[in-house]
Amino acid sequence: MTAHLIDGAAVARDLKSSLAVRRHDGVGLATILVGDDYGSKAYEARLRRLAGELGVPYFPQVLPATATQSELSTVVSGLNAREDVSGILLLRPLPRHIDEAALFRVIAPEKDIEAVHPENAGLLALGVPRFVPSTAASVFQLLDTWLDEAGEDRADFYHHAQIVVVGRSNNVGKPCVCLGYARQAAVASVDEWASRTGALQRHTRRADVLIVAAGRAGLITAEHVKPGAIVLDVGINPVTDERGRVRMTGDVDFSSVAEVARAITPVPGGVGPVTDVWLLRNTVLAAEAPRLEEVS
Amino acid sequence: MTAHLIDGAAVARDLKSSLAVRRHDGVGLATILVGDDYGSKAYEARLRRLAGELGVPYFPQVLPATATQSELSTVVSGLNAREDVSGILLLRPLPRHIDEAALFRVIAPEKDIEAVHPENAGLLALGVPRFVPSTAASVFQLLDTWLDEAGEDRADFYHHAQIVVVGRSNNVGKPCVCLGYARQAAVASVDEWASRTGALQRHTRRADVLIVAAGRAGLITAEHVKPGAIVLDVGINPVTDERGRVRMTGDVDFSSVAEVARAITPVPGGVGPVTDVWLLRNTVLAAEAPRLEEVS
Repeated sequence: MTAHLIDGAAVARDLKSSLAVRRHDGVGLATILVGDDYGSKAYEARLRRLAGELGVPYFPQVLPATATQSELSTVVSGLNAREDVSGILLLRPLPRHIDEAALFRVIAPEKDIEAVHPENAGLLALGVPRFVPSTAASVFQLLDTWLDEAGEDRADFYHHAQIVVVGRSNNVGKPCVCLGYARQAAVASVDEWASRTGALQRHTRRADVLIVAAGRAGLITAEHVKPGAIVLDVGINPVTDERGRVRMTGDVDFSSVAEVARAITPVPGGVGPVTDVWLLRNTVLAAEAPRLEEVS
Repeated sequence: MTAHLIDGAAVARDLKSSLAVRRHDGVGLATILVGDDYGSKAYEARLRRLAGELGVPYFPQVLPATATQSELSTVVSGLNAREDVSGILLLRPLPRHIDEAALFRVIAPEKDIEAVHPENAGLLALGVPRFVPSTAASVFQLLDTWLDEAGEDRADFYHHAQIVVVGRSNNVGKPCVCLGYARQAAVASVDEWASRTGALQRHTRRADVLIVAAGRAGLITAEHVKPGAIVLDVGINPVTDERGRVRMTGDVDFSSVAEVARAITPVPGGVGPVTDVWLLRNTVLAAEAPRLEEVS
């Protein structure tokens, strides 16, 4: 392996200590878990542990998979009204009978720490985010930190950089594009059609910074990567090994890509740890920040 | 000239006739003009004429350049409350002492026909627009129509296409990117740094569809364009000729680019005419559409 390993745990540690001194009255995280999706439960458990570690009051709401739209709306409205809750996270995926977008609209925008409410998605798109969604924030936190360590001038780097984002989800791909815009980089976005039409490699080989959030294990191999590129892997895919054990793997074939990239995030231990802390950071910010309406 | 000329006037005419049969109770357009910017006044006059032609009630609000933030807020709030106004357009640029973003937030989202309110910008970013902003809509209306006329299968074309958008404004560049996403194309966005770092041509030469909204007369010349590309010019720049007369010219050097492109929009007569009609279309839609809250 020739690439520099971007260490998510170290960045997460630094972010955590910056939060430890910033506790305020009214900080509190509420999560809403509906049903028993394996990934959601694992994420919930990590947030519970992290909240405990940081001394952030934590209020998990756990509902059966049979919960109705109106029951969930009532839960969210109740959390909106609580003074001890500054941040609300709706864990996904939600059961199929739930209209996710309608539920997102119920979350009070000033408690919407993942920016899923259209108003917050809009503020991000307009370049004035109230909250930066955690996964995209983590990607750029890792990138910014790594550039600093590598002695690069951030502004100069980004002004010359071609960022390519693979995957165009509302919660990760699109927010990553917005953060690339904020840094005044050239940003390209491709969706699944790049793979289907055989054009994926042509797009990804142009990237100085390649952000992969496609949700397909091992999608990106060495041939997809320009030598010297910085590769950030958002994928967390469960794969079963020959002994029947489940482990998590990224969208990037780490071992081959690490031979051509300049720097790369591992999975696990890359984007994930920072994402978790970032969500707690947004929860703290939500209690600190005056409401946007009061500012404007 | 070898490129096919994309005729904005013809597309505008068709759009107009589709609107003529769709008048409803409660349709009304209100514009707010502050001060006496030349471009804003010209745009206002065009909308006034078009509203008359289409039989859409028109309520222009004209304020002096000295109007205060609070006076403007009051005007917007008054329009929000009027049952005979379905669409509100705040003409820009606003005087410098006005906080534009704060004023955008005052417009009732269901009357915000240019989607400047964060909630509407968010719905567009999330891929479920309430209103598509008129300029970006016009660009893709011209493109879709031209592809149909050229016998291209739209879906197949877009799935294989690299769209490059030059310029990253909130009102044009970013919405164009969203509409490219909606068509499942690969979409790249560059800002002014592409020019400053000398990389503009490298980016634009990749485009199968080149959308230029940079606000710089003649920025794009033949060398910037891949032979066979489709070029859409959003620029409207006033230039003074040797006799001292002002005329409008685009961001694309028409005569040279028309020699290499497959198709191209002229300025004037390209994107502009469709934009005007699209705004009236959104005004009609605003009166037809149930409020989003009622739907969800």
